[in-house]
Amino acid sequence: MADLPDKASAFIDWYLAVVEEAGLSDKRYGVKGMNVWTPYGFAARRALDAVIVRALESSASQAVEFPALIPQTEFQKEKEHIKGFDDQVYWVTRGGATPLDVPLVLRPTSETAMYPVFALWVRSHRDLPLNLYQIVNTWRYETKTTRPFLRVREIHFIEEHSCQLDEAAATHRVQENLTSFAEMATEYALPYVPTRRPDWDKFPGAFYSIALDIPVGAGRTLQIGSIHHYRENFSRPYAIQYETPDGGQRFVHQTTFGLSERLLGAILAVHGDAKGAVFPSSVAPYQVVIVPIIAAEGGEAVLRFARGVAASLKAAGLRVHVDDAEGRPGPKYYHWEMRGVPLRLEIGRREAERGGVSWADRLGRKGTAGPDALVEAIRAELKGYDEALARRANAAFAAAFAPAATLDDLKGSTQVRYLSWCGAEACGHAIETAIDGALLGTPEGKFELAQGTPGACIGGCGTTPTVWALAGRPL
Amino acid sequence: MADLPDKASAFIDWYLAVVEEAGLSDKRYGVKGMNVWTPYGFAARRALDAVIVRALESSASQAVEFPALIPQTEFQKEKEHIKGFDDQVYWVTRGGATPLDVPLVLRPTSETAMYPVFALWVRSHRDLPLNLYQIVNTWRYETKTTRPFLRVREIHFIEEHSCQLDEAAATHRVQENLTSFAEMATEYALPYVPTRRPDWDKFPGAFYSIALDIPVGAGRTLQIGSIHHYRENFSRPYAIQYETPDGGQRFVHQTTFGLSERLLGAILAVHGDAKGAVFPSSVAPYQVVIVPIIAAEGGEAVLRFARGVAASLKAAGLRVHVDDAEGRPGPKYYHWEMRGVPLRLEIGRREAERGGVSWADRLGRKGTAGPDALVEAIRAELKGYDEALARRANAAFAAAFAPAATLDDLKGSTQVRYLSWCGAEACGHAIETAIDGALLGTPEGKFELAQGTPGACIGGCGTTPTVWALAGRPL
Repeated sequence: MADLPDKASAFIDWYLAVVEEAGLSDKRYGVKGMNVWTPYGFAARRALDAVIVRALESSASQAVEFPALIPQTEFQKEKEHIKGFDDQVYWVTRGGATPLDVPLVLRPTSETAMYPVFALWVRSHRDLPLNLYQIVNTWRYETKTTRPFLRVREIHFIEEHSCQLDEAAATHRVQENLTSFAEMATEYALPYVPTRRPDWDKFPGAFYSIALDIPVGAGRTLQIGSIHHYRENFSRPYAIQYETPDGGQRFVHQTTFGLSERLLGAILAVHGDAKGAVFPSSVAPYQVVIVPIIAAEGGEAVLRFARGVAASLKAAGLRVHVDDAEGRPGPKYYHWEMRGVPLRLEIGRREAERGGVSWADRLGRKGTAGPDALVEAIRAELKGYDEALARRANAAFAAAFAPAATLDDLKGSTQVRYLSWCGAEACGHAIETAIDGALLGTPEGKFELAQGTPGACIGGCGTTPTVWALAGRPL
Repeated sequence: MADLPDKASAFIDWYLAVVEEAGLSDKRYGVKGMNVWTPYGFAARRALDAVIVRALESSASQAVEFPALIPQTEFQKEKEHIKGFDDQVYWVTRGGATPLDVPLVLRPTSETAMYPVFALWVRSHRDLPLNLYQIVNTWRYETKTTRPFLRVREIHFIEEHSCQLDEAAATHRVQENLTSFAEMATEYALPYVPTRRPDWDKFPGAFYSIALDIPVGAGRTLQIGSIHHYRENFSRPYAIQYETPDGGQRFVHQTTFGLSERLLGAILAVHGDAKGAVFPSSVAPYQVVIVPIIAAEGGEAVLRFARGVAASLKAAGLRVHVDDAEGRPGPKYYHWEMRGVPLRLEIGRREAERGGVSWADRLGRKGTAGPDALVEAIRAELKGYDEALARRANAAFAAAFAPAATLDDLKGSTQVRYLSWCGAEACGHAIETAIDGALLGTPEGKFELAQGTPGACIGGCGTTPTVWALAGRPL
């Protein structure tokens, strides 16, 4: 039980240690970058996904599942797209001992799997909008250093694909996706900034891409999702067209919305601390852990009471675990703190006699609850905990940004910078060189940290008008 | 809206037509045998899986997820296993343009993915039992004719893998799995018979295999799952051992329990009829569909009332759909019957004024409910429907079996036959030849249809003692 590395000065070491010590992922599998979801990690993922499913389905998206293997012939139909993925896909070339006539790609994303079928499903304007999502794994032959949840070769992936009547309807769906993500982010207590990526950094085949970025300290950012407007870029090569009310044929406009297990990495990165993982109650595998404190006598009554409390909380829909293993309370507290459990209940003889509990939350607050309205009190504490977690994350978010008035301001910056940019690629690259990172793009919607109107471009040209843009170092 | 083929005389044609007309799967994807889960099919699968997850977790199994790609080196460690799968796995041989040093197999099942990691997870007798399951896709390079849900190349798969202290503990886990499956089968209203497969038909690498078989008419059977006892057959090559309380080292005994999307196929095959799919309410994507009957006047009130009823039912946890699309009621009834919806509510002006509903269930029963205690009445109708469905399935199950006293009885049999078998492979093969199918094995636990003790072996040797065995034609 050694101390974790320091989060501020050795972020990646700290992150890797938390993932391992909290038992969320096992990277000792025989293929580098393909990791095992442990029972505890899988439970977190299940809770994470439940939030996503709820948000997507309340924005009228329906779940489907398309095959994982894509024929090379379909994969290569959209030229930009294939250029973007050609060197990072896995190829299936044999079935048994037989070479396949047409090699198959393990999906890196599902445009090319879905769109030939969308062409069969979309016939009339009455079939639109078509909003479909799937939660599947994708594979990328990643050559950079892999990190659990952040950069892996088998990726737990959530992808919505939509077909819309026209460009305006597709733009509207992009906005609906942004709203859905805002709902999810609230549940995760994850502040973020949506940025429209510069043209040279958009998704292969997209008309434009909006990325969802999260600052994770020292000027670093993590892209945890993206929303793309494809216009007709895919519907033309894949022939997805519909009959209009007046009998004509038009190509659909398409959008996609992608999220992944990176969200779990972001939750660890943003909320975690020197004692380990810190989960919002929406994602915590156990929202409440009960530690019975068994003394020499009265142990039976304590255990019985602890189990009764657990049963009441479970009946109220909470995820609860009673840690009745052998051992002293201290190491158990340490164990469940490392694993990010929001609320710990301590139940000893005094509590059992009183019919109440002592509690401590993962942010260090303490109190007692019950015997009256115990379940309601625990619910209220969890709510208070989530709010405190959000306040802490929001404060860190606000402190993660600073303006930059010159290229010099960017050098060695330990904050994400907002700055005035003319929009030209040359100035963008100058900014990227100065910060040794990326021009993330222009904030989508209102970015409240940047007040007023932007000034002269800091990228070298010095011209106006400009837009606010963000620059940082993507992890 | 042509009639379906006749189920009794043209079963497979009927089955394929139901899958297509009910909109459960789209097989027009670019790789034969890899099908698309449509929104409706995916919703059925989600409900199906929820039953499985509940049963497995209540028998102390925990969800995990292991990678889909298995290094060739690990895949080949258990000799029987690899012999069983070598000619039906897909091989990944390239990442981008680069040939992989070690080719990767797309998992056909996960023994060889999991067990090297189990060897790291199991250290002490205190780590046992280890009961883990995952719900993932598997891939098999299937050379036989593919059929949606029944035989596909990308398979939605549920696999539990357990490590146990010794052979007796593993045998006990096999029994627990049988109990779990009995719970699931009750929810699906699926009668089945567990049979211990003959040695020549057990799972590659198993000590013994128990298959879960369902008769689907005309002597055909469908294996919808299996439970295997591995003894130490895998733990030795994969070095999964633990320290005993006295400090020694022992290999674990292992079991597995496998189910797949075939369950959905079996539900269609067993319950479906001349009007299409028939779902038990546990699996139905919509348990209740409300068809508002809009006349020239009063349409608004009807629709408002219908939506109110839907809201009440949803609040009670039911899956409900209001079919308020344009069009006459008749085709809507036909549409939802084809899709197997358990209960249809018809709401016209009379019902809206009265505050009640007229209902018709998928088995043709009709009645009215409400205005008082409407939700409770609908719940009761669904329960009665499920019970009637189970009775119908149980009657068909009992009628699907008949005894066979001679090899001649087996020829052209339109029932699954139970018979006396000495246990010898030669007699087994004689039986298989006669029925033009398979000796399914010996019933596990009590098989109530076969009364008394078995007689002389019918396989040709004529000896006693014998055991009851089942023979049929696996689909």
